[in-house]
Amino acid sequence: MGMTMTQKILAAHTGLDKVSAGQLIEVDLDLVLGNDVTAPVAIKEMEKFKSKQVFDKDKIALVPDHFTPNKDIKSAQNCQCMREFAMDNDITNYFEIGEMGIEHALLPEKGLVVAGDVVIGADSHTCTYGALGAFSTGVGSTDMAAGMATGKAWFKVPSAIKFVLKGKPSKWVSGKDIILHIIGMIGVDGARYQSMEFVGEGIKNLTMDDRFTIANMAIEAGAKNGIFPVDDITIQYMKDHSTKPYTIYEADEDADYDKVYEIDLSAIKPTVAFPHLPENTHTIDQVGDIKIDQVVIGSCTNGRLDDLRIAAKVLKDRKVAKGIRTIIFPATQKIYLQALEEGLISTFIKAGAVVSTPTCGPCLGGHMGVLAAGERAVATTNRNFVGRMGHVESEVYLASPAVAAASAVTGKISGPEELGL
Amino acid sequence: MGMTMTQKILAAHTGLDKVSAGQLIEVDLDLVLGNDVTAPVAIKEMEKFKSKQVFDKDKIALVPDHFTPNKDIKSAQNCQCMREFAMDNDITNYFEIGEMGIEHALLPEKGLVVAGDVVIGADSHTCTYGALGAFSTGVGSTDMAAGMATGKAWFKVPSAIKFVLKGKPSKWVSGKDIILHIIGMIGVDGARYQSMEFVGEGIKNLTMDDRFTIANMAIEAGAKNGIFPVDDITIQYMKDHSTKPYTIYEADEDADYDKVYEIDLSAIKPTVAFPHLPENTHTIDQVGDIKIDQVVIGSCTNGRLDDLRIAAKVLKDRKVAKGIRTIIFPATQKIYLQALEEGLISTFIKAGAVVSTPTCGPCLGGHMGVLAAGERAVATTNRNFVGRMGHVESEVYLASPAVAAASAVTGKISGPEELGL
Repeated sequence: MGMTMTQKILAAHTGLDKVSAGQLIEVDLDLVLGNDVTAPVAIKEMEKFKSKQVFDKDKIALVPDHFTPNKDIKSAQNCQCMREFAMDNDITNYFEIGEMGIEHALLPEKGLVVAGDVVIGADSHTCTYGALGAFSTGVGSTDMAAGMATGKAWFKVPSAIKFVLKGKPSKWVSGKDIILHIIGMIGVDGARYQSMEFVGEGIKNLTMDDRFTIANMAIEAGAKNGIFPVDDITIQYMKDHSTKPYTIYEADEDADYDKVYEIDLSAIKPTVAFPHLPENTHTIDQVGDIKIDQVVIGSCTNGRLDDLRIAAKVLKDRKVAKGIRTIIFPATQKIYLQALEEGLISTFIKAGAVVSTPTCGPCLGGHMGVLAAGERAVATTNRNFVGRMGHVESEVYLASPAVAAASAVTGKISGPEELGL
Repeated sequence: MGMTMTQKILAAHTGLDKVSAGQLIEVDLDLVLGNDVTAPVAIKEMEKFKSKQVFDKDKIALVPDHFTPNKDIKSAQNCQCMREFAMDNDITNYFEIGEMGIEHALLPEKGLVVAGDVVIGADSHTCTYGALGAFSTGVGSTDMAAGMATGKAWFKVPSAIKFVLKGKPSKWVSGKDIILHIIGMIGVDGARYQSMEFVGEGIKNLTMDDRFTIANMAIEAGAKNGIFPVDDITIQYMKDHSTKPYTIYEADEDADYDKVYEIDLSAIKPTVAFPHLPENTHTIDQVGDIKIDQVVIGSCTNGRLDDLRIAAKVLKDRKVAKGIRTIIFPATQKIYLQALEEGLISTFIKAGAVVSTPTCGPCLGGHMGVLAAGERAVATTNRNFVGRMGHVESEVYLASPAVAAASAVTGKISGPEELGL
């Protein structure tokens, strides 16, 4: 029996010729990631096992993105802890406010992850980098601490589900609709501790930003990781962003998959996940009349340039509906600048949206857009659990940037078609 | 004995021919202002005295600017309370996220305050509108409640100090340096319950934005209000922003002043207020070597277009020093858009600053830039009391946008001259 793409990468990082699903392995890490919530915990863990040095100062990335610019004294102290650790250890990839962004958008942009890498991050959406043909997964702060100290991590090798993507998405359908459709189909534990391996000729019709969005939400189906094959689009992205050498791994022809799904991208409609689970999906034509209070466009899921372009296309020369707070978060400073230079930021402000600094804030009810009791948000973020964006009696509807922007204009959950687009 | 400019305005709002310092009077209000911190308290007070209606739905302004976009559930609930009150009472001037800004920049911009008005606001920096030749002052939430219900407020008529401004400020000196210089001279209780009346030929050399900054900080000298005469610059500003009729009041020639100061604007140097009082001023040449962690440019004091232009002039083609968090807050959405169209936002981002939505957040240690123990900020805000921006062991140095921007580049408190400007 052959290996999946994920297994191939893991095997190459163990020194073993072959690994199999269920096997416990220790792998060499190419990158260890932490943020202002998780890194301080990991740093304290490192102190406990009296580890004073990091395994490689170039292979750790520390990004203060969750509660920054500092929400309160506690978040200021967490950032201070991480900053001092970064200075003490001469960490190459510590990113201060002003040069940073949301970690999962920032790391690929900075060229820190390439195809074939093994990356752990103390953040559940670390699975994002699977879009580049890397193995990446979220871990706890203790594993992060061990990773920073030793450069290694233990894994149980995951089995896999294969998703064969065919066809081309229609006009307003993007990566977000595809992954919501899949999660709606298999459920939030549909891929528990498995790899979601995306293959098929449909992939060529997905931009890198679509792929990042899809891989990002693999965790919302319970997956260990999500991963895409490396094609010309991936290679071009890596050329544009990185000087790091990459390795392309392909699944063996006789690799074993627990399941195979065929997905016709051309049949997917704009999709919305209703409260309080990402699997609770409805296509836009089934949504009905749901009035909203807030729209959030951004996050590690949908704060990239493609996302902002789509939102701007919808908001251009239109106005946000009276009473709707529309908050837009470019995921990184670079994306912000690109959006500014393309005129997107101007479109947003003229439409009556506010544009925030890059931060994870509103996605997790952290700051910059927390909901009160009874309020409803349409968000391009990744989770709509009870109380995710604030009060336990608030509601989050997950959607694409196109749907979120159209909803901002109408004041209820809407597709762009409702605006004649 | 004649009346001061302030007394003339108050008298005209009482129906009395003359008022004198120390007299208790009831005045008719042209505008009552509240924000997301104070309005909810006032709304609950109104409920207590079973007042269900506001005196005039067009003469109340409600601005959710302090903890917005909502910092947490509590701030979300406060905003919700104010929003519902605004809808129930059909308040004309309720401003939602996306159409708003920091109250004291927003109200003049929206043309809601003009010369001769009497304005109370449940926020201490309501004195800002004195720049337009209006009487405006901060009150508590109970007074705001009474004002919303009755359209009236009680005052003890203030006596006044006259500041005769002469000459022209030198290149990098702006309104902020002037008011810091004055507070340094008279102290934080130097004008307690008095009017600060600014007169003299030097005023023609001050832009409206300079005047807003100066009037804004009158409260930091303990003043009841700060006020400027109305000249062509004021009239042009009102023409550009308002359709409201205005009335020009001038102090009587024989008006009584407790004190008269002459200020030579050309002799004022860039001035910095050290922790922990605005009176603790030092000119830039006396500052010494003070390393900083954060720079904040914005607020109701210095978040206007002139301020951003000055900051951009300093930051253009320069980089924020490594490790310095630089947070820039245009005070309103309109200012943000103007700054964007002038290329200032692009300059900030390229320099490595972040640009926030309009919010009071960092000025009061509310959110968006709170300091940890031992951290130092240079801020264009208005108060540097112990713990004002976060931890009680943090420090705030108040300065102009020019000094703040230069400090961001050098990483220590610096004037633009240090950059060869």
